Amino acid sequence: MNAELFPDLEGTDMAESDATTSRETGDEHVATEPGPAGDGAADRPADPVPKWAVTFQPSGRRGTVRQGQDLLSVARELGVEIESTCGGKGTCHKCQVKIESAPETVSPPTGVEARTFSPEALAAGMRLACQTLVQGQVKVFVPETSRRYQQVIRKEAGERTVPLDPAVRGYRVVLPAPTLQDALADAERVAKGLKEQHGLENVNFDLALLQRLPLVLRRAGWDVEAVVWQDRAIIDVRPAAAGRPLLGLAVDVGTTTIAAYLTDLRTGEVVAAESAMNPQVAFGDDVIARLHYVVHHEGALRELQRNVIGEINNLSRKALERAGASPDDVYDVVLVGNTAMHHLFLGLEPQALGVSPFAPAVQGPVDALASEVGLELNPRCRLHVLPVEAGFVGADNVAVIIAEEPYNREEVRLLIDIGTNGELVLGNKDRMLSTSCATGPAFEGSHIEFGMRAAPGAIERVRIDPQTLAVRFKVIGLDRWHNEYPPEDVGARGICGSGIIEAAAEMRKAGIIMENGNFDPSLVHERIKYVDGKPRKFVIAWAEETAIGRDITISLKDVRSLQLAKAALRAGAEILLARYGLERPDGVVLAGAFGSYISKHHALALGMLPDCRPENVISVGNAAGDGARFALVSRAKRREAAWAAQRVEFVELAINPDFQGQYVAAMSFPAVTRITDD
Amino acid sequence: MNAELFPDLEGTDMAESDATTSRETGDEHVATEPGPAGDGAADRPADPVPKWAVTFQPSGRRGTVRQGQDLLSVARELGVEIESTCGGKGTCHKCQVKIESAPETVSPPTGVEARTFSPEALAAGMRLACQTLVQGQVKVFVPETSRRYQQVIRKEAGERTVPLDPAVRGYRVVLPAPTLQDALADAERVAKGLKEQHGLENVNFDLALLQRLPLVLRRAGWDVEAVVWQDRAIIDVRPAAAGRPLLGLAVDVGTTTIAAYLTDLRTGEVVAAESAMNPQVAFGDDVIARLHYVVHHEGALRELQRNVIGEINNLSRKALERAGASPDDVYDVVLVGNTAMHHLFLGLEPQALGVSPFAPAVQGPVDALASEVGLELNPRCRLHVLPVEAGFVGADNVAVIIAEEPYNREEVRLLIDIGTNGELVLGNKDRMLSTSCATGPAFEGSHIEFGMRAAPGAIERVRIDPQTLAVRFKVIGLDRWHNEYPPEDVGARGICGSGIIEAAAEMRKAGIIMENGNFDPSLVHERIKYVDGKPRKFVIAWAEETAIGRDITISLKDVRSLQLAKAALRAGAEILLARYGLERPDGVVLAGAFGSYISKHHALALGMLPDCRPENVISVGNAAGDGARFALVSRAKRREAAWAAQRVEFVELAINPDFQGQYVAAMSFPAVTRITDD
Repeated sequence: MNAELFPDLEGTDMAESDATTSRETGDEHVATEPGPAGDGAADRPADPVPKWAVTFQPSGRRGTVRQGQDLLSVARELGVEIESTCGGKGTCHKCQVKIESAPETVSPPTGVEARTFSPEALAAGMRLACQTLVQGQVKVFVPETSRRYQQVIRKEAGERTVPLDPAVRGYRVVLPAPTLQDALADAERVAKGLKEQHGLENVNFDLALLQRLPLVLRRAGWDVEAVVWQDRAIIDVRPAAAGRPLLGLAVDVGTTTIAAYLTDLRTGEVVAAESAMNPQVAFGDDVIARLHYVVHHEGALRELQRNVIGEINNLSRKALERAGASPDDVYDVVLVGNTAMHHLFLGLEPQALGVSPFAPAVQGPVDALASEVGLELNPRCRLHVLPVEAGFVGADNVAVIIAEEPYNREEVRLLIDIGTNGELVLGNKDRMLSTSCATGPAFEGSHIEFGMRAAPGAIERVRIDPQTLAVRFKVIGLDRWHNEYPPEDVGARGICGSGIIEAAAEMRKAGIIMENGNFDPSLVHERIKYVDGKPRKFVIAWAEETAIGRDITISLKDVRSLQLAKAALRAGAEILLARYGLERPDGVVLAGAFGSYISKHHALALGMLPDCRPENVISVGNAAGDGARFALVSRAKRREAAWAAQRVEFVELAINPDFQGQYVAAMSFPAVTRITDD
Repeated sequence: MNAELFPDLEGTDMAESDATTSRETGDEHVATEPGPAGDGAADRPADPVPKWAVTFQPSGRRGTVRQGQDLLSVARELGVEIESTCGGKGTCHKCQVKIESAPETVSPPTGVEARTFSPEALAAGMRLACQTLVQGQVKVFVPETSRRYQQVIRKEAGERTVPLDPAVRGYRVVLPAPTLQDALADAERVAKGLKEQHGLENVNFDLALLQRLPLVLRRAGWDVEAVVWQDRAIIDVRPAAAGRPLLGLAVDVGTTTIAAYLTDLRTGEVVAAESAMNPQVAFGDDVIARLHYVVHHEGALRELQRNVIGEINNLSRKALERAGASPDDVYDVVLVGNTAMHHLFLGLEPQALGVSPFAPAVQGPVDALASEVGLELNPRCRLHVLPVEAGFVGADNVAVIIAEEPYNREEVRLLIDIGTNGELVLGNKDRMLSTSCATGPAFEGSHIEFGMRAAPGAIERVRIDPQTLAVRFKVIGLDRWHNEYPPEDVGARGICGSGIIEAAAEMRKAGIIMENGNFDPSLVHERIKYVDGKPRKFVIAWAEETAIGRDITISLKDVRSLQLAKAALRAGAEILLARYGLERPDGVVLAGAFGSYISKHHALALGMLPDCRPENVISVGNAAGDGARFALVSRAKRREAAWAAQRVEFVELAINPDFQGQYVAAMSFPAVTRITDD
């Protein structure tokens, strides 16, 4: 790069040095007259081209550059974000800045600028950074409108962007080597560089970093990148020349699935995403089972923690390999999960969580070293865990909230994050209510005779002809309906959550099952199977259409599991609506992998969701994962999360007198079933 | 105790609850009318005696107490420090407070008070805490004059006291158990208790503590002591009933000796002190030798760190045994040492320290976990290392400065801390100069033929009759001069630093050695031994007076070592005086074990010290250890240290043009030697 940062300590730009430099005299240095910084550079090879100090406001970033360099490139080198889309050709007119030093400190306006600005604006010092050349000690102000904010774009439905402002940032500092006249200590030298070159104040160092600092600085020739957490704690110092990536990891730990997003902290982009089953499933399908296991087995807490952290380590290792980076390049981690997962990955004693009144160990955000929970990343990598709301509304739900921002909306929407637990948030800018309902794992295919996770071979779509009871279904892995393939090519293996919901809704529509969920005894059909002379099962896929050689059916027991699950969800939603004083929400937002696959029409038909127009029901995918990613790259989002977790009013269903009634009422299916097909 | 802290959350004293308690409504609770706190205590056995909230200002400490209790005992139970020397008998009149609530909230003035205060004062609410009984919701103001500051007294010469304000404090909090209506998380519940009962804001928790918190709180029945660092980080929560000690460890790591002071953080008292040889001596007598070893041996840094930390662990174990306490009771450690020791116990790469420009890795104070350097204490015990000044003026010197406080004095004194290195500070409230001179280990008895450390058998005092050259000496372990014992009972083993200085000075006074340090060739005496026909040794103790069966002598080589050492010291002092613009200091303060044993008269006679009246030379013992102890029990002293380290102007002798001249000049002894005996 051209800009040479602080070639010497005599440079006028170093005049405002911090107290640690004035040990010999005890006084603050006094600013010398403006003049070429080169002047004082006695111990440097003479340089024909004079150098000048350039300061950018409001960032306060400063550096010394050769005369004649344009302000846009200087800004780039000093890390000052200035908008520009034409690459400095002078055609986009976006890089407008205001010169606050004397006009003669920069080159005179060009024709381009004469056409861009009014004479008054030019007189006031307005210029295009790309057209303006340094000719003296320049002070530049960058107006809000010209500041470039890198945005993090969410790919999924309903685009969201957040300004890039990660908790961990890299700052390049070029430092003068110590001399007998300037024997400032290494740590204070780095702190001084960060203050003068980037405006950071009162930074501190991890001891583990201080131990290596003298070697690092000297091997790097005093040209380093300081990795700083919250602009306060210096967690690493690395040779700038190495040009290592600066990465973070956002992880959504679900009861069943773990999703990890390896993110570039400089751009906010996800460089690699990985997901896997939560290995804790071996200790129980749902959180209750796992908490029970932990409470009743010595050392089980550490075991389950090792177990989930181990899987996160696998995922990050895979992602790092794909990104061609090293674990040492990862400096920040954000973890979210429901309150039970939160306690298990943090290793917090969860006893109290499992029993009324379900008090968590901690509600607020947790900051720690990633290594403290066993994550194998940079040894000084930080860990941030979003706050939980209450007993069973966790950090994952907080993540959904900061991703969907109901508190910024007029309309009152119901956010439904259906996982092994259903977490609901109802609200808008005025008020937010939340609750959690034990939907059980039915929606994920467990506790269903032929249930399976959404994987190749799973029946995910089902249609039943009300007249003939003929069945069409779609299998994950095949593009078209099954009847467009020869039976032997269908190879169904089971039914996943979305398939079960469609099957039940279609069975209800075709009158195969009644309002109460029982099979209609009057109905006779080859697909209806009898047990002890009573209709108990309906065949979705004939044995020859499967890879398992048996008919794939929906049984009465399956329908019951579904009824329990959807009743819990619906009852929770109705309690929130009643508490808010609403008949119906303005909209329903389905979050979570499941939410993005289920047919809203069938869900509505089953009475799973509160009364709402289909067009007002949207799916937003893994909003919890999005929230985790946002918190990784935006400190504002972390503050928002801490605030939102406090703001949301948790409604405890267990002590709500209306819950039982609502629950029972929601058990049966609607009398009339309309399904406006997708 | 009588005062029952927050028996329930309905109590009026809980009205100002923090935001985390208002999750259900999103609103702050609203203060109810004053009234007996008992009223709202539905879920508590009815209590005939009403309870009242009492608040002390400015501390903000609050609690609920039974009607009729006196304010002095309430203050004690809430940890509010109020002066009182008569134990509440009403005779010392020291516990004066001001009632800021209505007069009827307390009992009417007693006769004692009527005699103590003017009618105006009584009307203004002035009372004696010991005479005033609670009869309502009381607000009490404790005037500065009545506040009791526990003092830390330094036993050694020149008493110093500092107000007790340790970085780590214990706060008792009694909490309500969670209910479905109040399902606040454990951590937030503790934080709320600390805020309401002790006025602490924005506390945070170590993850390792959060992990165990739920168990600890429930096992302790919600009556706990929170151990808090800097009123900010909660590092432990323990059952209040256990009544464990709260300890800290102050350690002065000298090049040759390590001194550890196990201190009660509640009283500031040293409960046990231990000292031992610094085992690093095996790697070199002086810091240069050790730095050289580290730089040239792979892994030597960790080795030397383990080595010194291991010895500190031994010392703390011994001290804890004597105090009947456990390593888990130690929550804070302060370490001081010269810059090389500082780097070695912190494990900081010391390469740069060993070569010009002698830049340390860090100058400012270092805060870390004690476990990070290998100290085996409470796993969350904190470590604070005082700042260093520069290359060879270390944290031990900063400790001396905060112990002696030259910056609070008018007279300009020279502080001399003579260890293996001599560290000098010259100054007063206007200016402080410091430097370090390589005196070498001669003063500690090394590099002296019969030199030894100050231990039993060491000759520590020497007198020589100028006429007869008869020698009297004192041996450590014997009360009287040696000639008062039969020779075989003397058992001298060698000469320690103070003995060497006295011997040399007495030899000079008796004319045995000349100004240039050579033996006077004209002098003939049985005690003068010849080598190659030249006088080279003077016998201090005859073989039969020793335990080693050989004459103990002072050789010309010994005298030369002494000349080099004292010349370095004197030259450094003269450079500082010249820099300050003074002929002589107003006083000389000798610090360090050596400083307290050496005879100032002999030191002055040798020209070791700058020209100064003997009565203005004082010894203050291990001032560095005192400074470390003060920093352990006083946060103000830590701030003072950080400030002083910046304020002191380090004078680098290596680049001082006058040093060589001064050094050579100081090599010879004064022409005239007067010794006004002790």
